[in-house]
Amino acid sequence: MTTKKAKEKPVILITNDDDITSKGIRSLVEAVSELGTVVVVAPDSPQSGMGHAITIGSPLRMNKMNLFGDVEAWQTSGTPVDCVKLAVDKILHRKPDLCLSGINHGANHSINVIYSGTMSAAMEASIEGIPSIGFSLLDYNYDADFTASKQVVQKMVSALLKKKLDKHLLLNVNIPSLPPEKIKGIKICKQAYAKYEEDFSERLDPHGKKYYWLTGEFKNFDKGRDTDVWALEHGYVSVVPVQFDLTNYTLKKQLEKSNLFK
Amino acid sequence: MTTKKAKEKPVILITNDDDITSKGIRSLVEAVSELGTVVVVAPDSPQSGMGHAITIGSPLRMNKMNLFGDVEAWQTSGTPVDCVKLAVDKILHRKPDLCLSGINHGANHSINVIYSGTMSAAMEASIEGIPSIGFSLLDYNYDADFTASKQVVQKMVSALLKKKLDKHLLLNVNIPSLPPEKIKGIKICKQAYAKYEEDFSERLDPHGKKYYWLTGEFKNFDKGRDTDVWALEHGYVSVVPVQFDLTNYTLKKQLEKSNLFK
Repeated sequence: MTTKKAKEKPVILITNDDDITSKGIRSLVEAVSELGTVVVVAPDSPQSGMGHAITIGSPLRMNKMNLFGDVEAWQTSGTPVDCVKLAVDKILHRKPDLCLSGINHGANHSINVIYSGTMSAAMEASIEGIPSIGFSLLDYNYDADFTASKQVVQKMVSALLKKKLDKHLLLNVNIPSLPPEKIKGIKICKQAYAKYEEDFSERLDPHGKKYYWLTGEFKNFDKGRDTDVWALEHGYVSVVPVQFDLTNYTLKKQLEKSNLFK
Repeated sequence: MTTKKAKEKPVILITNDDDITSKGIRSLVEAVSELGTVVVVAPDSPQSGMGHAITIGSPLRMNKMNLFGDVEAWQTSGTPVDCVKLAVDKILHRKPDLCLSGINHGANHSINVIYSGTMSAAMEASIEGIPSIGFSLLDYNYDADFTASKQVVQKMVSALLKKKLDKHLLLNVNIPSLPPEKIKGIKICKQAYAKYEEDFSERLDPHGKKYYWLTGEFKNFDKGRDTDVWALEHGYVSVVPVQFDLTNYTLKKQLEKSNLFK
């Protein structure tokens, strides 16, 4: 009976970009381990800001780990996107029913969706035809408090597992750094046009040669009340449905009419 | 007089992901050097498949190079996206009028737009408010023939420089590997739903430990005649207008109606 029941459970693939030892991925595993058969495949080192990088020019390693009790777990030397590919082709040998990425230590709202390893792993799953969600908490601390995040994850994943999901479903979920009772609710949003105004800190190395560190100040240029940045600033969890068709259809129509390149 | 004229010319930033010594970037510089004041800022090593990766955890280096005659050129230790950021903040100290990325050795049509360092550099420029185009030739060879590509670049860039461009304009241009007279024209397209069906080649290292190389077969699941893959297969240059707002507005409406997470 137990075996049969276990087999009926949905298979949930979990990955992240902060690395397999982070508190965020552990919190995600704890939040959903009762909701399905969980398998973790995550990077062996931090991969924040890796975007949709894949490893082409060098080989990948993977090792089975004993980190989450009964939950099967693998660490890989690859990027978050590599982890999803390895999980499907070499570990699960099938597509999982759901892919969850995170919980990221730090925001992935607005333009961050493009730079984020967390969201790129989720997008890779969506491209493969696996419904997928990336979760991020607005707290960069190593020891951040994931109490409210775990409740949000449980609520959303439970709701979604009751539905027949579109195979390309992809959600970018950001959670404000607040205690559970202070969170106002879950809001469906659009991606804000908000971005980093970059600057580089210029320094001299011990040999007198210049080097540069990326720094930047976050600026929201989007005044809409339907954006993820607005929702988060007002105490809501933001949920942005995401797509991987990047075609700008408005510009496509304009260019077709213009005959510019004829 | 010469100085004044030079100042009036548009400033064109050129980058790529194959590295600053590749034939593709040299071809791009040659194609547009008469059309503006060209500045090259490109990676010092190959960065294919880097997607929208940025360098957060380590410092960056850059060095001025003498590779393109009179054209100012810098190589950096960063990703293609880092190159755009460094160019704007530390080299040009302004936004260029146009950013061109490539010419990539190999296709960046369909889903490749997401993995491609070439396109991510162009997208970064577009996010920054710099009109931008990524060019790719469907030939991975080191010594590929860029004759037709250079003509396409010249035609498109000349046409665009005559217009007032939207500051977020972003085009993904792919060029079939054909002699100029065989190219049928330039076609405005949508991104095909075509992707790699991945597989990993499993091998043993000299110490008996397993490692994995990413391999894959390209498959087009999109039967439309309005896609980039269709255009390229039929001898056209494909132009896909690209956007960085990844919100799936259709799914957004559905979720808002559903009350799924209330």
